[in-house]
Amino acid sequence: MQAVLKQTAATGFTIAEVDPTRPGPGEVSLRVLAASVCGTDLHLYDWNPWARSRVTLPRIIGHEMGGEVIALGEGAGAGGDLTPGTRVAVESHLVCGICTECVIGLPHVCANTRILGVDVDGVFRREVAVPVRNAWPTPKGMSAEKAAMMEPFGNAVHACSRRPLGGEVVVVFGVGPIGCAAVAIARADHAARIIAVDPQPYRLDLAERMGADVLIRADTGNLDQAISRAAGGPISCALEMSGSSSAVAAATRVVRPGGWISLLGLGDSDTTIDLNSNVIMKGLTIYGIVGRELPATWRHTMAYLTGPDAIDPSLLLTHRFALSDIDPAIELIKSGRCGKVVLIPEE
Amino acid sequence: MQAVLKQTAATGFTIAEVDPTRPGPGEVSLRVLAASVCGTDLHLYDWNPWARSRVTLPRIIGHEMGGEVIALGEGAGAGGDLTPGTRVAVESHLVCGICTECVIGLPHVCANTRILGVDVDGVFRREVAVPVRNAWPTPKGMSAEKAAMMEPFGNAVHACSRRPLGGEVVVVFGVGPIGCAAVAIARADHAARIIAVDPQPYRLDLAERMGADVLIRADTGNLDQAISRAAGGPISCALEMSGSSSAVAAATRVVRPGGWISLLGLGDSDTTIDLNSNVIMKGLTIYGIVGRELPATWRHTMAYLTGPDAIDPSLLLTHRFALSDIDPAIELIKSGRCGKVVLIPEE
Amino acid sequence: MQAVLKQTAATGFTIAEVDPTRPGPGEVSLRVLAASVCGTDLHLYDWNPWARSRVTLPRIIGHEMGGEVIALGEGAGAGGDLTPGTRVAVESHLVCGICTECVIGLPHVCANTRILGVDVDGVFRREVAVPVRNAWPTPKGMSAEKAAMMEPFGNAVHACSRRPLGGEVVVVFGVGPIGCAAVAIARADHAARIIAVDPQPYRLDLAERMGADVLIRADTGNLDQAISRAAGGPISCALEMSGSSSAVAAATRVVRPGGWISLLGLGDSDTTIDLNSNVIMKGLTIYGIVGRELPATWRHTMAYLTGPDAIDPSLLLTHRFALSDIDPAIELIKSGRCGKVVLIPEE
Amino acid sequence: MQAVLKQTAATGFTIAEVDPTRPGPGEVSLRVLAASVCGTDLHLYDWNPWARSRVTLPRIIGHEMGGEVIALGEGAGAGGDLTPGTRVAVESHLVCGICTECVIGLPHVCANTRILGVDVDGVFRREVAVPVRNAWPTPKGMSAEKAAMMEPFGNAVHACSRRPLGGEVVVVFGVGPIGCAAVAIARADHAARIIAVDPQPYRLDLAERMGADVLIRADTGNLDQAISRAAGGPISCALEMSGSSSAVAAATRVVRPGGWISLLGLGDSDTTIDLNSNVIMKGLTIYGIVGRELPATWRHTMAYLTGPDAIDPSLLLTHRFALSDIDPAIELIKSGRCGKVVLIPEE
Repeated sequence: MQAVLKQTAATGFTIAEVDPTRPGPGEVSLRVLAASVCGTDLHLYDWNPWARSRVTLPRIIGHEMGGEVIALGEGAGAGGDLTPGTRVAVESHLVCGICTECVIGLPHVCANTRILGVDVDGVFRREVAVPVRNAWPTPKGMSAEKAAMMEPFGNAVHACSRRPLGGEVVVVFGVGPIGCAAVAIARADHAARIIAVDPQPYRLDLAERMGADVLIRADTGNLDQAISRAAGGPISCALEMSGSSSAVAAATRVVRPGGWISLLGLGDSDTTIDLNSNVIMKGLTIYGIVGRELPATWRHTMAYLTGPDAIDPSLLLTHRFALSDIDPAIELIKSGRCGKVVLIPEE
Repeated sequence: MQAVLKQTAATGFTIAEVDPTRPGPGEVSLRVLAASVCGTDLHLYDWNPWARSRVTLPRIIGHEMGGEVIALGEGAGAGGDLTPGTRVAVESHLVCGICTECVIGLPHVCANTRILGVDVDGVFRREVAVPVRNAWPTPKGMSAEKAAMMEPFGNAVHACSRRPLGGEVVVVFGVGPIGCAAVAIARADHAARIIAVDPQPYRLDLAERMGADVLIRADTGNLDQAISRAAGGPISCALEMSGSSSAVAAATRVVRPGGWISLLGLGDSDTTIDLNSNVIMKGLTIYGIVGRELPATWRHTMAYLTGPDAIDPSLLLTHRFALSDIDPAIELIKSGRCGKVVLIPEE
Repeated sequence: MQAVLKQTAATGFTIAEVDPTRPGPGEVSLRVLAASVCGTDLHLYDWNPWARSRVTLPRIIGHEMGGEVIALGEGAGAGGDLTPGTRVAVESHLVCGICTECVIGLPHVCANTRILGVDVDGVFRREVAVPVRNAWPTPKGMSAEKAAMMEPFGNAVHACSRRPLGGEVVVVFGVGPIGCAAVAIARADHAARIIAVDPQPYRLDLAERMGADVLIRADTGNLDQAISRAAGGPISCALEMSGSSSAVAAATRVVRPGGWISLLGLGDSDTTIDLNSNVIMKGLTIYGIVGRELPATWRHTMAYLTGPDAIDPSLLLTHRFALSDIDPAIELIKSGRCGKVVLIPEE
Repeated sequence: MQAVLKQTAATGFTIAEVDPTRPGPGEVSLRVLAASVCGTDLHLYDWNPWARSRVTLPRIIGHEMGGEVIALGEGAGAGGDLTPGTRVAVESHLVCGICTECVIGLPHVCANTRILGVDVDGVFRREVAVPVRNAWPTPKGMSAEKAAMMEPFGNAVHACSRRPLGGEVVVVFGVGPIGCAAVAIARADHAARIIAVDPQPYRLDLAERMGADVLIRADTGNLDQAISRAAGGPISCALEMSGSSSAVAAATRVVRPGGWISLLGLGDSDTTIDLNSNVIMKGLTIYGIVGRELPATWRHTMAYLTGPDAIDPSLLLTHRFALSDIDPAIELIKSGRCGKVVLIPEE
């Protein structure tokens, strides 16, 4: 079958034929019906320093997908909720289950985490096998594209759920797909006011459609003042989804004493903070956010995406490409003029 | 009566006569039986940039004290637990009760906090009047010196109680009086191992007496490795009491994924952190710690300092001076060869 | 002005002229624009054993109201958010601020609570004075009738917020106005399925309009089985709003191991529970719910009732009467064929 | 090898020869060095209604043990911390890992729990095989007898850790071995005052040695008043370890508004409670406590039993018998004149 590979250190990806997959013991093999593209995939495309330090070549790319169970490996049927034909979303972090973090209930920071499409071969192909625990049955009627978006949406759920947002003023720095998901979650949680900050008008427009009350260009002069005015009251929470050092610093300045910040966006450099005035004297709490709490975040995400008041993440899904059209897809993402981009593997 | 004043911008303090105090409505006047010296007092002595930006002169110094009720102002008797003769410790932060933070139960970050000896006249004198809510009756038999130490001890309680320490490996950066109190609290909470890091041998020695299992000089080559080896397992928590930027960075490096850091020490400059690798990807939580939660920390502190298994903070109290001997007291503290230093106002 | 009084031990209320009210120190006087009737008022009407043991006659009745500030007493303007004309809702519990419970942040169980219309004269009149802290400014545009409903709605918020409801199956026993509010809150919190149980078809119909997925008559044979079938999966939470002993027992049976129950409904007798099998071996948690957490529940309630996704409690408001028509209002409530009933004081 | 069996419905146990054990896949086989007797074993001895409804005969009895690893089954070495010779304590609940409760992190209420010595053959023999996850390596130097006591001690840890006990007044109803462990834990957690209630002077004496401040006979006239006087202030917490319905009711009466109760003791009948006055209006929280949180309670228990301030549970261990002397051991326990009784399997 066709797959998207990172084959050499040169910029770009390769489309190549790869062998079919068989589920090992405790694994389930899946038909990939939709796979979405993440910023991490761009780091691999560009072969940036992080990619170089972590990834062994060649590697099949991709870690966000919705699909369907094809076959179960030995012992994979014990839980009973997966059978051939079951529609699933996929948790991209494969965890060991035996390190300290796994044993004390924090598998999302498992010391031995292997990420699909980074540390092991990923989902940008027609079929893939994953541990049975990484396949989450999706509700009846959920499209494979929506299912693919549960992984990044779950990142936002994890970041947003550190403390209640109901009735609070929230500022979201960086409204790419995860930031926009955070806006939608804050809206669903009855935040009093949601302020979106981003350099890209296209993305601010998406944020508005997901429920942001105020849109602020990140290059606005005196950004702090602009945010505080828009807030109309104390800001309880900042959700940092941009990876920009200056956004991190702004977050510590604009949040009220006793408030909190979730840091999710990964940046390019170290960050300098005035800890004395903006963290310690203000009694702030800062949460580093990685992956999804297992299984809490998946259950929580499922709740947001189903039922009569469900958030509709398909507003965020702006473009579709065939799997083999990965190059124009990457170009589009780099332009910043899109939401989530989905790849559809051919038969 | 005699008082220690900051009178002019020149380095040092002045001993001067000041007027006696009468309790206003809702206030209680106290006889100061013991007053201890804090690092903040040194900033005022040196008239550093922070002091210059915040303090109006002249100002009576001091905010840590144990004493006795002399008289109650109008309406101050309503709670019923204070009468002339009642021994008390004093909360140094005067809070407004009506700002957002006060109303939502976070008065320790009250937007209008006034600190004794900083924003209003302090306790380095024979008598002082404070709001009745700031006077905490001390248990029968507790000395005024121990009572004076409840305020800084409470800082340590606040920092330590963000998450349970029982069975965890803890590293304390900076073992001045508050860091040593943190060591004692971690011991009382049944931490599995307590590692103390400080540049001063004198202080490390004090930390050992308070219960530290391992002592590490802060100038040790390859500090991270030294700490990790001493830990003998994952470090769940770092308590940053030194204000050193390099200690903050080390804390983020040595704590295990999913662990936490309390930042309490105030430093001289901004701090640069590798947020990506050491906070976000590790899923750390960082708590800025200021003051004491009101009233939770005082109740908690009372519990640590009383009963059959009480922590004895008097091990930390290494030197006593007459109030008028403030100058040699300050010199001693600057030498780093002391624990807590207490001043005794003369009759 | 006219007021509804409980004047003698005979069944019923009296309409009588009472003196106008002046705000005392720290009080605010209010024009009552709408006042709603609570089950407690029926106990007073019937003069049941609880009423007899607690209430001193004569007493002006009523504790749920929306209104407008007329005048501020001495010192009542300090917070700054109340001025003549400000629209407010009213917290019905007057707390002392100095008992253990108040001091440790649990004023909703203040040992000296006095309830409006029960322990002090209430709101079924044209004007009333209350402590300034009991008057909560309502958002611009909120009607006085909605404001009156914030007090009972807050009871439901308190009961629902013990643990997250998102993605969970919830059963609500008793869907009078508070139970219906609980249904709406569970819906807003993205519960997976909401099951309403009540003997009254009229009320079940209201519950459906507020978002219940399944309606079950309380007199259904084999109620446990009916609830479990409707659940289609483990029930995480039961909200007991009926006060029926058999509902409490059913709640302990149908909730899954590790689940929780909020008890809010007050019954007529002691309750017998199989603690071994249904509480201890199942590791359940049972929360007794009284009043509203102060101030957390009011902020939380405000969040549910405002903004683009606001819950509309006016669906629950089914009937309006003039204040002097209290008798037919009480009769209607006793018939069970109504939601919330509101009284409008005449000029 | 010799084992203690429940062979027939007649009262009593049988000593019989049983086949040796081999560890299955994922299991570890253990040499039993010490096994302690629990109240549950008495129910089996007496063949009470609960035993009759749950247990299939014949059954090897016993679920509390300390021992040593003999051999590892296939795949049991993956975690790496168990090798032949490793000393271990044993978690008695075998959980499925795939039910809802297991998946959401509540395996202590696993729907498919099998208990050693109840649902599967137990530890009153020389060797036993258990799943590798049920064997907890004990700290260097911990005796097998102490290791055996970690299971019931863990019950007490679970009950005590629902909320902080530091500085609070605590009442423990029922001071058998688990109640006495609760007393020791409350002491270690710096409770302000610990009141022990029991009908047996022998047990009250043990409770005093574990740190109880006040001892009250359960048959004292006006028990509520006796407890309240002894408390000298509001009682925040009751730990119900007796299984007596009257103790449960007393607990709800004596605990202050906003306080909490852990229910652990299993009784003989349903319990009648005045929910209105003593649970709802007081805003109490009641926690049903079963087993140990996995793995949190084991880590927590380890912390209490090790280190310089370790609790010494061997004060509770009052009698030792050979395994074949189970009959006199049971008789002694029924007399109430003992603490924990340990059986030592012969070579």
